[in-house]
Amino acid sequence: MDKITFDDPAVRAAFRSIAAKAPFVYGLTNYIAANLNANVLLAAGAGPAIGAGADWPSTFPAGAQGVWINSAAVMSNDAETLRTVAETAKAAGTPWVLDPVAFGAGAPGYEEIVRSLLAYRPAIIRGNASELIALAGGDVTGNGVETTADSGQAVEFIATLARDTGAVVAVSGPTDYISDGARTVAVPGGDIRLTKVTGAGCSLGALSAGAVAAIEDPLLAAITAHAAFARAAENAAQRIGPSGGSGSFAVALVDELYALAGSAE
Amino acid sequence: MDKITFDDPAVRAAFRSIAAKAPFVYGLTNYIAANLNANVLLAAGAGPAIGAGADWPSTFPAGAQGVWINSAAVMSNDAETLRTVAETAKAAGTPWVLDPVAFGAGAPGYEEIVRSLLAYRPAIIRGNASELIALAGGDVTGNGVETTADSGQAVEFIATLARDTGAVVAVSGPTDYISDGARTVAVPGGDIRLTKVTGAGCSLGALSAGAVAAIEDPLLAAITAHAAFARAAENAAQRIGPSGGSGSFAVALVDELYALAGSAE
Amino acid sequence: MDKITFDDPAVRAAFRSIAAKAPFVYGLTNYIAANLNANVLLAAGAGPAIGAGADWPSTFPAGAQGVWINSAAVMSNDAETLRTVAETAKAAGTPWVLDPVAFGAGAPGYEEIVRSLLAYRPAIIRGNASELIALAGGDVTGNGVETTADSGQAVEFIATLARDTGAVVAVSGPTDYISDGARTVAVPGGDIRLTKVTGAGCSLGALSAGAVAAIEDPLLAAITAHAAFARAAENAAQRIGPSGGSGSFAVALVDELYALAGSAE
Repeated sequence: MDKITFDDPAVRAAFRSIAAKAPFVYGLTNYIAANLNANVLLAAGAGPAIGAGADWPSTFPAGAQGVWINSAAVMSNDAETLRTVAETAKAAGTPWVLDPVAFGAGAPGYEEIVRSLLAYRPAIIRGNASELIALAGGDVTGNGVETTADSGQAVEFIATLARDTGAVVAVSGPTDYISDGARTVAVPGGDIRLTKVTGAGCSLGALSAGAVAAIEDPLLAAITAHAAFARAAENAAQRIGPSGGSGSFAVALVDELYALAGSAE
Repeated sequence: MDKITFDDPAVRAAFRSIAAKAPFVYGLTNYIAANLNANVLLAAGAGPAIGAGADWPSTFPAGAQGVWINSAAVMSNDAETLRTVAETAKAAGTPWVLDPVAFGAGAPGYEEIVRSLLAYRPAIIRGNASELIALAGGDVTGNGVETTADSGQAVEFIATLARDTGAVVAVSGPTDYISDGARTVAVPGGDIRLTKVTGAGCSLGALSAGAVAAIEDPLLAAITAHAAFARAAENAAQRIGPSGGSGSFAVALVDELYALAGSAE
Repeated sequence: MDKITFDDPAVRAAFRSIAAKAPFVYGLTNYIAANLNANVLLAAGAGPAIGAGADWPSTFPAGAQGVWINSAAVMSNDAETLRTVAETAKAAGTPWVLDPVAFGAGAPGYEEIVRSLLAYRPAIIRGNASELIALAGGDVTGNGVETTADSGQAVEFIATLARDTGAVVAVSGPTDYISDGARTVAVPGGDIRLTKVTGAGCSLGALSAGAVAAIEDPLLAAITAHAAFARAAENAAQRIGPSGGSGSFAVALVDELYALAGSAE
């Protein structure tokens, strides 16, 4: 399996193209992660708008260059609103990212909503191992929003899910794996403290939408988002040191994305 | 046109009066910006409460010394709730601030809600150039929540809007302009990274409510909030340096407001 | 009255047991505090999920080891949803924490909702002095979400409230007091900047749920959460110095909880 990191010149160039194009990216997400999601997109050079205000779900996905739906947005919005965003994106040809937070954690009504979104053909699906194995029909269950499986265990499942849905599927973990059904690549890197910052995984969903808004190929877009996030995490870890806490890590992560995007130059 | 900065002794004294009076400030805002909005008000010495919990919209604006409505609050609240807050503030004589986020970005149902709030006579309206030009009936459209116009282009429009609504109107940009319809002043300063921190503009709306809660003259209140915010941004920029990232900038911005308020002394 | 701090070996061991057990902790909270609440729980080693997504309120409290309800969650959820979470926790035997934010601030409909939750027998109730004196039937009123009373004034009231409800009751202030109705202990420490960080008090509610999820005795759990939070605040204050601002303080607070939990070792 190929390994790709942010050292790849095509990936670096693709990441810089986000800031060059400054796409408008619209998303539904949960209110725990919303602030970090937006700041990650701003650091990368995209212009985010979040939330289902009045007629935004039926208008903003058509004007946006990229969309994401973090399904935990159901804590603020009903299922119909999520479907309106997905449907509007599909109708307008705006590529969109599905982040099926906490899928497989034991809430059947919630999972039915998430499954119903697949009909609107997301360009990218990203999640942790428990979520994606469960979504692919596998037999691993999560514990709330934490994964109980390793990303390596999900490799076969994401390839199957990619073939079944037509989406590029990306699983996060110590090594991330990304598949379009035909080809699966490994994106190593990151830092354990990513698991100690709420919304870090969700921000990878937002960043994937920023990437797919600027980069035509969804596989390259997903790889770019994951490789940039992993490198930013490594740079943040190096800056704060091994004993640096999770509060400082979250701040440094945004700083390092901002630097990778060339915004500090 | 007069230029005013935080060097003006009247502005400094007015800003310090917020912490001295410690007003209770109530607001509806969006959940992306809510945390930073509250921390900015706390740093300035006000006591914020945010959100439409049960009968809060019909009771808190009457007990508060200042109120703000960030219209993107519609992502959590219906139009009627926004109007209840505005109406309760008006009936109680509590000055309130309108922040018409994303007005002009292409969502007509949303814009109708925002327009309906003008009937409750906000003391201050603040926004970016795209939002305020559109609200004044001009022909510039935004891109999501980002402005596509420069604050300088909005100068005539904010004076008109001030005369039409009776509110003090403030537009944010590289230079902020603030008008009561008769007089328009320029407040220069700030830092480009304010555009890279989600909720920074929204926090200027919250801070304007904190100011108008403690300072009788709405024009001085708006000037004070904008001048303090610009100076805090400059001090934050100086502290983290030109290559400092947007994550560190957001933290330093709150720190510097806290210092300007005299809370660190 | 006994004084207990984080120097107590039983408290330190109890706090470390949270990270060792890594409990799943589910909560309803307000969207201003949600991000900090989750990051505090993650720093302590718990796995939080927040919010009423679809059927989460009727399923997640049963699978969780601890639950908390911050009643300001009514800004996103109706009263019935709060009661569903409390009832599901009670039925499953999951200990839960009630945080009656802004009780006594002049919103009678809201206070009725909060009172209705007491029937589901919280294991711990935590709040500031105004909130708990009002909940105990005393005659002190708050000002929005800020307290107007000192924690020392609440000592008799929390003991009464503990006897009336069967809960351990904890009041925050310059010194925290914690009572099970028979015994009341003082937990000194902390830093004034805790009052300048939005959601800091709410995070003590979340952390109490993390503690009661891992520590069988609710009195020891409440003491542990409060003593760890106070020590983390002191360590944060020492790190940033007396002139450090409230933005840096919030970041350092999370870092220091992470360090106390042993996560940095």
